[in-house]
Amino acid sequence: MAGDFILNFTPTGMIPTKEMTSHVPISVSEIVEDVHKATEIGITMVHLHAREEDTGEPTYKNAIYGKIVEGIRKYAPELVLCLSLSGRNFGELEKRSEPLMLEGILKPDMGSLTLSSLNFNKTASINAPDMVQSLARIMKEKGIVPELEAFDIGMINYAKYLHKKGLLDPPYYFNLLFGNIACSQANLLHSGVMINDLPDNSLWSLAGIGNVQLQMNSLALACGGGVRVGLEDNIWFDSERTKLATNSELLERTHIIANANERNVMSSKDFRKLMHLKPGNGEYGRISK
Amino acid sequence: MAGDFILNFTPTGMIPTKEMTSHVPISVSEIVEDVHKATEIGITMVHLHAREEDTGEPTYKNAIYGKIVEGIRKYAPELVLCLSLSGRNFGELEKRSEPLMLEGILKPDMGSLTLSSLNFNKTASINAPDMVQSLARIMKEKGIVPELEAFDIGMINYAKYLHKKGLLDPPYYFNLLFGNIACSQANLLHSGVMINDLPDNSLWSLAGIGNVQLQMNSLALACGGGVRVGLEDNIWFDSERTKLATNSELLERTHIIANANERNVMSSKDFRKLMHLKPGNGEYGRISK
Repeated sequence: MAGDFILNFTPTGMIPTKEMTSHVPISVSEIVEDVHKATEIGITMVHLHAREEDTGEPTYKNAIYGKIVEGIRKYAPELVLCLSLSGRNFGELEKRSEPLMLEGILKPDMGSLTLSSLNFNKTASINAPDMVQSLARIMKEKGIVPELEAFDIGMINYAKYLHKKGLLDPPYYFNLLFGNIACSQANLLHSGVMINDLPDNSLWSLAGIGNVQLQMNSLALACGGGVRVGLEDNIWFDSERTKLATNSELLERTHIIANANERNVMSSKDFRKLMHLKPGNGEYGRISK
Repeated sequence: MAGDFILNFTPTGMIPTKEMTSHVPISVSEIVEDVHKATEIGITMVHLHAREEDTGEPTYKNAIYGKIVEGIRKYAPELVLCLSLSGRNFGELEKRSEPLMLEGILKPDMGSLTLSSLNFNKTASINAPDMVQSLARIMKEKGIVPELEAFDIGMINYAKYLHKKGLLDPPYYFNLLFGNIACSQANLLHSGVMINDLPDNSLWSLAGIGNVQLQMNSLALACGGGVRVGLEDNIWFDSERTKLATNSELLERTHIIANANERNVMSSKDFRKLMHLKPGNGEYGRISK
């Protein structure tokens, strides 16, 4: 278990369309199937975005999230599932928190929590302080663990502030994301500062947007971190952008680099223990104190 | 001139009210008078926010900005004036860019440009990419120099991106602001990374929000930077918060620390030369190429 790394699989996201790449899984059955292949290759957790079945647009609806969760848990009941609570396309708390209302065998283990407002390339992503705090509060009440999304150094400080306010409890899991145009960049100084700033009792993975995905993933494997990888962040296999990637190819390359670095994928079981998550045998979310 | 530091005076801002501190200048005459005192103490430039005369609320209106500019230039025609284009209370481009429409002897030398969306303590500050680019484009067309406001490391990258897109030209002036809860923090590592990331041909000042104002100002004086100081960022004189500050007291303390560090306030004349600004004898803004 020592030295094992978290492999956080992000198959879909909100941006890729079938027009951009036929390999991106959009429908429930495509997502369930891509995650199935991923579990055979070896992953620790999956970060899921749902899409409308007819239009392919991002959706917050449990009618769809529930089907994805149900489909995945049929073959991988132990896999740690994180549902996106992104506000990029819908701003109301009721919509953003809807995936947290799934119960029983559909209950997510984790929900994504972006820690501040920021700009993406074309749009602002608004996560006002009261929204971030409300989502954290609901997750705490429901025993769902936040997947903390930090795009710049100040967002790590905000996680510490949420802990002081009693809205966030360790152990923490952070995705540190690099390469958005108005956020921290994919270099050793920015990633070093962010890793250095993490609170005690934090697990973390590095992600890179677009071409820098491989660089940040490889950097994480070199320096003891986890990997967030998948078509959500990057649709190309090569930096020259001559070949569209499949999710399986991105995962297989991660395994090749990890193996050569003497690092193994952390099992979902071990990750559940480290994050104080229930064992995943029909019960999900964080173990009550 | 070598070693001279920019003293950027921020008397009012959007947050302080007379209820919080009687010392904050709100009306046109109060602002004009506080800046007058500041010029006698010694400053390089002033960062101005206008307030409604009846309610004291922040305003974008030239009816008020124009009076402030007119009042200041009667006694200090050379002082470099920056008008706030903040979107915290009004989001439309027409409103945010209104201060850029002042002409002739009322034309501002500079306008503030926050480089991304971010969260303050209680609210989101939305500066979507198209808004930032539109404000930069108008400023470039009108020969008004952006005062670049960077609250986290990614915002410096965005300034570089604006330059690549042809919307921003050197020499640059940056305010690097520390201590907002979801932004970069007041420590050597965060400020060091941000200063290190600045593009070539950048002048810069350090600002701290609340109690860390003194720390960041003093740090700037120690390491070659400029100082942004005033009641906009901090209303207290002491860290124990026993005594409300006046703008003059904050400026006088800055001078005491600067003098002991063998640093002198840069004259507006020298700053105009470095920033390619017109001499301020009735003509304002950047010199055309």
